[in-house]
Amino acid sequence: MTYLKQDRPIVAITMGDPAGSGPEIDIKALRTIAQADAKFVLIGDLRIFKKASEVVNANDLKFVKIAHPAEAKDEPKTVNVIDLGTFDFSNLVYGKPSISGGKAAYECIVQAVNFAKTGAVQAIVTAPISKDALNMAGYNYPGHTELLAELTNSEFVIMALVLKHVKVPHVTAHVSLKEALDLVKKERVLRTIEVTHRSLVDLFDISEPRIAVAGLNPHAGEGGLFGNEEIQEIIPAIEGARDKGIDASGPFPPDSVFHRAYWNKEFDSVVAMYHDQGHIAMKMVGFMYGVNLTLGLPIIRASPDHGTVWGKAGKGTADERSTVEAIRLVAELAKRKLNQKPSSCDNVTGKLPSLPPKEK
Amino acid sequence: MTYLKQDRPIVAITMGDPAGSGPEIDIKALRTIAQADAKFVLIGDLRIFKKASEVVNANDLKFVKIAHPAEAKDEPKTVNVIDLGTFDFSNLVYGKPSISGGKAAYECIVQAVNFAKTGAVQAIVTAPISKDALNMAGYNYPGHTELLAELTNSEFVIMALVLKHVKVPHVTAHVSLKEALDLVKKERVLRTIEVTHRSLVDLFDISEPRIAVAGLNPHAGEGGLFGNEEIQEIIPAIEGARDKGIDASGPFPPDSVFHRAYWNKEFDSVVAMYHDQGHIAMKMVGFMYGVNLTLGLPIIRASPDHGTVWGKAGKGTADERSTVEAIRLVAELAKRKLNQKPSSCDNVTGKLPSLPPKEK
Repeated sequence: MTYLKQDRPIVAITMGDPAGSGPEIDIKALRTIAQADAKFVLIGDLRIFKKASEVVNANDLKFVKIAHPAEAKDEPKTVNVIDLGTFDFSNLVYGKPSISGGKAAYECIVQAVNFAKTGAVQAIVTAPISKDALNMAGYNYPGHTELLAELTNSEFVIMALVLKHVKVPHVTAHVSLKEALDLVKKERVLRTIEVTHRSLVDLFDISEPRIAVAGLNPHAGEGGLFGNEEIQEIIPAIEGARDKGIDASGPFPPDSVFHRAYWNKEFDSVVAMYHDQGHIAMKMVGFMYGVNLTLGLPIIRASPDHGTVWGKAGKGTADERSTVEAIRLVAELAKRKLNQKPSSCDNVTGKLPSLPPKEK
Repeated sequence: MTYLKQDRPIVAITMGDPAGSGPEIDIKALRTIAQADAKFVLIGDLRIFKKASEVVNANDLKFVKIAHPAEAKDEPKTVNVIDLGTFDFSNLVYGKPSISGGKAAYECIVQAVNFAKTGAVQAIVTAPISKDALNMAGYNYPGHTELLAELTNSEFVIMALVLKHVKVPHVTAHVSLKEALDLVKKERVLRTIEVTHRSLVDLFDISEPRIAVAGLNPHAGEGGLFGNEEIQEIIPAIEGARDKGIDASGPFPPDSVFHRAYWNKEFDSVVAMYHDQGHIAMKMVGFMYGVNLTLGLPIIRASPDHGTVWGKAGKGTADERSTVEAIRLVAELAKRKLNQKPSSCDNVTGKLPSLPPKEK
């Protein structure tokens, strides 16, 4: 993968499902951002974006159809669109998944990823898609993450929430809590810590990231009293990471570690064991400002942390703030990467001391 | 149980483990509160409380030994103590569980409960105890809750967190997450909703409490995609509660329902399925201000939401804010109860309509 030699990154933003709130949110977010240290290219259907701008009363915007991100204009109130033109516009029914919608949503992602892989764009933000529509169109992926992993040949990707200075990668995500329990194994936890460390160094330019690891059980198991996953799986994973020189610590009681990271800034990252562990904590304080960032991909990709918001599609009322934050985040990460010397985890030099026994 | 006819309630506050931070926190909390619409009685060991007041530099306090709460003085800087005198003071080693400490902690609770049962006090606040010390002394209880249940012959008690206007009862608490999953059954969820409803009506004087029920799985299972406990157990429990006229709703996605209750005030209560679901949410916004309130007891009992804080015992540095809030809460609840007409859930009159099908 090569990046274009330039100072300002280009960010591709996908349309998402045309019958959902994605296109409207995209337009609202671009208007909110107005000026940024990046250029933006929408990927999707020109008519859908025009319609969305009417819905959200952004009638002063000028849409420019381009064929390649390199042609992107950088003028006020000008929106660059790569028009895939495959969506059957006459088929548009807001709030309903359709074959045509699923197909169009899928193709936006493929196009965006291809641009990112070839360095035509430096980051992508994906608008919400519908699993149902995707499946109706014959693409059987549970969501973006799995599709992005396949398109980039990535074998271990992680869903992370980013809110201000805190990054919360999840060891497990969109599975039942019962299945999550079965997946919390040493290898998986260790790999999550490693990928998190690498991402914090490479993407966020934190030379020695402080990674807290949450326990799985109440009070982090209280020495085996409330479950033994900490002893059998999580502590060995943390020790394994420390053996590689990673500043991982824990397992910490889940009900205070997120507080410590967010309010006290004691950690750069908290590794969550399951979806709601990280999501409850982050959404409690940053409901519409959290960003979903995928770690472990060779490209930079973020998304708003919500779905298609079917009920508000066509009304212009869906909240764009999470998308605004996603665009700002990837623009910042991409800009940093453009101006970075090639390096990767040079700071991991040796084994850290073992963790001290924990005081009860 | 009969309550004394009086306007101002008497609140009993236990010492907790004498080697932990409990006695110091009690003294600090009483100083912070200074004046309140209640009288306070410490139950424990007079020498321990005097020592604690030295540790926290509360040398201006006057300790008065009384034999019964009815003798409680109500003068500034005067602390009423019922001195059980059973602790072997020469045995005091801060931060260490001991047989003598466990025995003394146990006896404080028994005495406080007896006073509450006979109406000599109208509420109790319990300082932190040590499970280890309790066990060393031959009392095999996992914690306060189980002991209180036994002492009051209560068969179904619930640990609830109270933070400002939000009450978060837990269907399960101090068990492993795996065990919690097995305990999330219709009967248990329904009973938790019912006891919560009754408590909100009786204790908090909310005539028609709005009770949200959290799902167990990510996105509340998303229609069975991520687990089926919502469909098999939680929805039937909610329907069962509504059949009895209780305004229960859900199951809601766990990562937004606490936010909605706390920030948007959409609900009076959110029923959490497991310890960290409720605790992560409440501690994220109210770390040292949450109060642990036991529902389902015939007496009013709260405690700070933390343990003995062994590491700070004897140093006077443990945080008393949660105890301050616990004392304020029970004083308020007890005062309301004293001035209340006898009634119980008169508002539950009939069946509520079934829940509408949920929009994805």
